[in-house]
Amino acid sequence: MDYDRIFADRIEGLKREGRYRVFADILRARGRFPHATLKTPEGEREIVVWCSNDYLGMGQHADVIAAMEGALSGAGAGSGGTRNISGTTRFHVELEGELADLHGKEAALLCTSGFVANEAALSTLGKILPGCIIFSDALNHASMIEGIRHAGCEKHVFRHNDLAHLEELLRAAPAGRPKVVAFESVYSMDGDIAPIGAICDLARKYGALTYLDEVHAVGMYGARGGGISERDGVQDKVDIIEGTLAKAYGLVGGYVAGSAAFIDVVRSFAPGFIFTTSLPPVITAGALASVRHLKVSQAERERHQERAATLKHKLAEAGLPVMMSESHIVPVMVGDPVRCKALSDALLTDHGIYVQPINYPTVPRGTERLRFTPSPLHDDGLMDRLVEALGDVWTRIGVADAA
Amino acid sequence: MDYDRIFADRIEGLKREGRYRVFADILRARGRFPHATLKTPEGEREIVVWCSNDYLGMGQHADVIAAMEGALSGAGAGSGGTRNISGTTRFHVELEGELADLHGKEAALLCTSGFVANEAALSTLGKILPGCIIFSDALNHASMIEGIRHAGCEKHVFRHNDLAHLEELLRAAPAGRPKVVAFESVYSMDGDIAPIGAICDLARKYGALTYLDEVHAVGMYGARGGGISERDGVQDKVDIIEGTLAKAYGLVGGYVAGSAAFIDVVRSFAPGFIFTTSLPPVITAGALASVRHLKVSQAERERHQERAATLKHKLAEAGLPVMMSESHIVPVMVGDPVRCKALSDALLTDHGIYVQPINYPTVPRGTERLRFTPSPLHDDGLMDRLVEALGDVWTRIGVADAA
Repeated sequence: MDYDRIFADRIEGLKREGRYRVFADILRARGRFPHATLKTPEGEREIVVWCSNDYLGMGQHADVIAAMEGALSGAGAGSGGTRNISGTTRFHVELEGELADLHGKEAALLCTSGFVANEAALSTLGKILPGCIIFSDALNHASMIEGIRHAGCEKHVFRHNDLAHLEELLRAAPAGRPKVVAFESVYSMDGDIAPIGAICDLARKYGALTYLDEVHAVGMYGARGGGISERDGVQDKVDIIEGTLAKAYGLVGGYVAGSAAFIDVVRSFAPGFIFTTSLPPVITAGALASVRHLKVSQAERERHQERAATLKHKLAEAGLPVMMSESHIVPVMVGDPVRCKALSDALLTDHGIYVQPINYPTVPRGTERLRFTPSPLHDDGLMDRLVEALGDVWTRIGVADAA
Repeated sequence: MDYDRIFADRIEGLKREGRYRVFADILRARGRFPHATLKTPEGEREIVVWCSNDYLGMGQHADVIAAMEGALSGAGAGSGGTRNISGTTRFHVELEGELADLHGKEAALLCTSGFVANEAALSTLGKILPGCIIFSDALNHASMIEGIRHAGCEKHVFRHNDLAHLEELLRAAPAGRPKVVAFESVYSMDGDIAPIGAICDLARKYGALTYLDEVHAVGMYGARGGGISERDGVQDKVDIIEGTLAKAYGLVGGYVAGSAAFIDVVRSFAPGFIFTTSLPPVITAGALASVRHLKVSQAERERHQERAATLKHKLAEAGLPVMMSESHIVPVMVGDPVRCKALSDALLTDHGIYVQPINYPTVPRGTERLRFTPSPLHDDGLMDRLVEALGDVWTRIGVADAA
């Protein structure tokens, strides 16, 4: 059997649809972000990164780098084992304490990524709770969908942020069965925000646990960076909060925070947590410094919001189809995968502006877009150059040209 | 509904069985491994780590640390995005090239962990190949089992390393359907080794792809650290090799290597690869240095094998029930979870020797064990103290005491 032929056919399908992904090889230079170097077969060139999820630029913060240098020099490279078998260090223990405190929960558990945290926690919930039914927002992230799928339990999808539909589904479910409502705070592709308090009130009314993904909000919202649930004063209403160290905190890794009993269950039963080497001390030490810094400093959060608002305003003024999101995420709608890729390519080639096209399956077909993530380090000059460049490629690349 | 009560009941069950896990909080000091510091509620104490999977001590190798310091200082903390969205750096690209070369394959793909690599690759294979049947060794790692489960395809488990049983199952399967034989080279808990060439010959006879997990062999076997498949001269017979950067290479992360078409399929379709932040440059730079070092240096591999043989010999001479494994893994059988934990606790408390008890589900019930991993840095003096201490606690802690 010609397996490579089968694989190649699938890849051809992606190419025909215009959504085959080519990774840009870039290297950030510490202290110069959002400037970076792009490596291509033709050589190297300077670019400006407009699509990083290092939302606040903490990936180059002096405190973070210093903490990492200290841990690297002190403890070495990797942790050397799973959490259970020699891979728990005091950096892990302290970071879990810091994250539990951040969300006002009894305990927290680190995973190797936010994807793994969602997969591990949601699949464990669905397996551990007998007869569990999970109610999942229609726009939940792929990692939540995978976790719910792996739980193997009954699932109902409610229309995005639609309280009436959620209540309809909750009301129709048997009263005696365990239930989980799983949703996000900031949806990363549209940048809209869930009514967390109202969803939790509804869940409580029907005896459901609440599971909130704050991946695109931790560090960026709330007086201590606890996310939208902190900003809205509803942290106590949420049973389980999932977050990441890979976006606003500038590192890598994910976590869940909740009751001590829940955390102990994930810790004890989730294969994705148990059977994997723990994060290196150099990573957990850096994350600890980043979380601690953003618990007390407001400067990054304030500047971040101001920068996002400014960019939306500038794009709208230029007549570009920017979505006026409620958050720091700035999507510009294209609606076609081939044109989306062509716009992205032209921005990079002609203007040194790097923004990846966002196509299916990351967003629904027909809603392809460019997604800009202005950080505190993207100044007015960079924004003006972006708006001008986007106007230029937008004029040149019509749908007809690209199709 | 009292969810915490349900969670707590499950935890109580683990405690009753004697297999509730308590993580030891340890900190390695670079340059002093296998010595480390244990933190307990009572204070700190010095210990010797006997259960790390940093098999060769590369986690503190000068070249690795220097490469990491360089990347940290140069590029900052995290990568800032998924591989597709600003998270591909030249360290990732170079490391994937180095790993493909290591295994003599066309391409390789980095994942955030070996667990994720197995889950992503096996689940994708089972989904992409229409009507796929996966044949899985009975002792395959949890991450392979998860990947195969998530594939949702037909699965047959063959008795561990049993060629006759595998052939029986292959022969019984319809000839026209895609097939994958999934197995490991070194099995991490017994330390035994698969007959890779014979399994691949059998797979080829029945038109099956071969998927080999070399996690506990890469860096440690073969003239360039390509694993048992390199040592045995059968790399070319294996279609897909999965490995880790978290054990012999001393860091964190996993990968698969295979044909360019296969790698492109995993890259393009696996949610666990696509929707997750890529490894930080500091990690990939360290791994690159580690892989490159072990491609040319034999010293670590030779000393590692000698150390493992010496420890097995010393334990056997002392009359302890050591398994005379074919590899670097040194299991001492206990056969009861409560006694296993008691032995481990006494070693730590009375002798400052840290070896985690290995209980179900990591090993089958009734085969609970202590698993020692001597590295090139565990000298004769440490070994003699270990053997003496183990003799002491073995005499004191009978099965009757612990039950």
